[in-house]
Amino acid sequence: MKTENIMLSNDGKNIIILDQTQLPNHTEYLTLDTAEEMYDAIFHLKVRGAPAIGIFAAYGVYCLSRKITEKGYDQFYQKFAKYADYLESARPTAVNLSWALDRMRQTVEKNRERPVEEIVKLLKEEAENIQKEDIDMCRRISEYGLTLIKDGDGILTHCNAGPLATSRYGTALGPVLLGRERSMNFHVFVDETRPLLQGARLTAYELIKAGVDATLICDNMASSVMKKGWVKACFVGCDRIAANGDTANKVGTSGVAVLAKYYGIPFYVLGPTSTIDMSCRSGDDIQIELRDGEEIKTKYYQKPMAPEGIKCYNPAFDVTDHELITGIITERGILRAPYTESLAEIMK
Amino acid sequence: MKTENIMLSNDGKNIIILDQTQLPNHTEYLTLDTAEEMYDAIFHLKVRGAPAIGIFAAYGVYCLSRKITEKGYDQFYQKFAKYADYLESARPTAVNLSWALDRMRQTVEKNRERPVEEIVKLLKEEAENIQKEDIDMCRRISEYGLTLIKDGDGILTHCNAGPLATSRYGTALGPVLLGRERSMNFHVFVDETRPLLQGARLTAYELIKAGVDATLICDNMASSVMKKGWVKACFVGCDRIAANGDTANKVGTSGVAVLAKYYGIPFYVLGPTSTIDMSCRSGDDIQIELRDGEEIKTKYYQKPMAPEGIKCYNPAFDVTDHELITGIITERGILRAPYTESLAEIMK
Repeated sequence: MKTENIMLSNDGKNIIILDQTQLPNHTEYLTLDTAEEMYDAIFHLKVRGAPAIGIFAAYGVYCLSRKITEKGYDQFYQKFAKYADYLESARPTAVNLSWALDRMRQTVEKNRERPVEEIVKLLKEEAENIQKEDIDMCRRISEYGLTLIKDGDGILTHCNAGPLATSRYGTALGPVLLGRERSMNFHVFVDETRPLLQGARLTAYELIKAGVDATLICDNMASSVMKKGWVKACFVGCDRIAANGDTANKVGTSGVAVLAKYYGIPFYVLGPTSTIDMSCRSGDDIQIELRDGEEIKTKYYQKPMAPEGIKCYNPAFDVTDHELITGIITERGILRAPYTESLAEIMK
Repeated sequence: MKTENIMLSNDGKNIIILDQTQLPNHTEYLTLDTAEEMYDAIFHLKVRGAPAIGIFAAYGVYCLSRKITEKGYDQFYQKFAKYADYLESARPTAVNLSWALDRMRQTVEKNRERPVEEIVKLLKEEAENIQKEDIDMCRRISEYGLTLIKDGDGILTHCNAGPLATSRYGTALGPVLLGRERSMNFHVFVDETRPLLQGARLTAYELIKAGVDATLICDNMASSVMKKGWVKACFVGCDRIAANGDTANKVGTSGVAVLAKYYGIPFYVLGPTSTIDMSCRSGDDIQIELRDGEEIKTKYYQKPMAPEGIKCYNPAFDVTDHELITGIITERGILRAPYTESLAEIMK
């Protein structure tokens, strides 16, 4: 049975992934064999989400290492490094991709005295470790998050910070999914998350698959459901947390935080400590990626939904002021304001 | 040259409309001749917006009255009433539709002693009056609104309360369009307004056509542009205003108001006094229309963008708390808090 988004085939020769570009219409698994197929999967976002890409690349380069017929270390390493470099070039800005491949490279280098067959086995172990560590980290975040809500609560989330972006549980969805495993019932309101609809396409898919009661809304309906009293907490992921607690996440997150404050609802950010960037003093130091306006005007539609020539402003992320954040939930515990102090303490 | 959304043909026999269902991809004018074509235009939203529907029906029934060959009053009235009832049945809940057709019926009844040819002329005058009154009302609202902003300001709007929904100027867009006529320059941020995209399809179209500098954003990006300091005022329309100032408008409006308050930006509601409903004590008395979830999941898309079986919550409107509203701009002036008093005063 296929239980993960990323896994090895039974014979351990291939890597199998859930193709995220086909969601939510098709649950399609791809069996990838060649380096070219793996590169393509990263490049075309068939596998996405920073931790997921890292895990994928680690397993991928392990599978490729099995194809190397040379038994001498130098020749083996040469071919191995070529594969690793090639996969890394698929998304050069993805931090987790190079981080994971570096760990795989180091595994080879540290064991240069051992026979190649043994190195290959160690590569498999290292890939498994990377995945296990991610599962463990998400599980800890989920456990901490679960202490903040109670059975029957309504939760609002924005974008996708679930299992598809990691390896299991996810971050923002983690407490709900872990609680579901323990037969707890939550009701999750899912912001569709324009313009790329990660909420509608991915989060809704994950929640339905896990048997969680979920309701999809347009981003502009969050105010309505909060006003109704249906939301007891907001859980969102994060892309970067500054030293003062200001948090960059998918665009729209800061609006959810402002609404939550107005309606008196706690607003929590969930993410691993690797997301905390002490070199950013505040949100002002975080660069916001601006994307093509076509994503707003034409993407997914049968025909353009805005007049030709209209300008668009399409930031991929926004920054939520630290004063709007009730708590930051990491694998090392729940941080509270003043964040300048609690973040410095945990990052010592 | 076609300057209005609704107008008579040169020979006065037909009614010409801009087909709103074709926007923004095609600027297509339809010349309507028969009662069936007019019914269809209302029913299929080729003409939409409460005041616009009323104006359309008035001109429509005038054109149809010209087709009546009977010269005796009773026979004429019988045929005329049949046309009016038929058009009215196209959208039975549209208040402005029955209101405008009632005025046309009364025009006939009050002049029963006159020759039919003269009655037909008076019908044309009455339709022109209805349109003129609407233009006048929008113009007054626009003049009052224009006193609240200054040349160069950034304005944020939600949904469509422009000329397409009325006859000229519109309400929320009125101050900007009137200012543009006077060579003032504003920069308007247009919320796309999910799920039916009235902002992207209609407001963006109207602003470009009027030569106004405009930028389309997803609804969830309003927080980002406000935080940047780019927005000096929010202008929105309204569907119903309660006696305490609570205002129902397109879903998402209340979220814009909460954001505006947080970022210290004035938030104005613009609409005619006919929108004020003193029988509603507060927003709690305003019924909110819930619409089909397919609008969120599938409408306009090439394929479904959410998994099958996901529940949706799709309210068409939301209610903005009166405490979030800086001012209500009507054709009789600008109302300020406490609204219970200022609304009672103006509605005396």
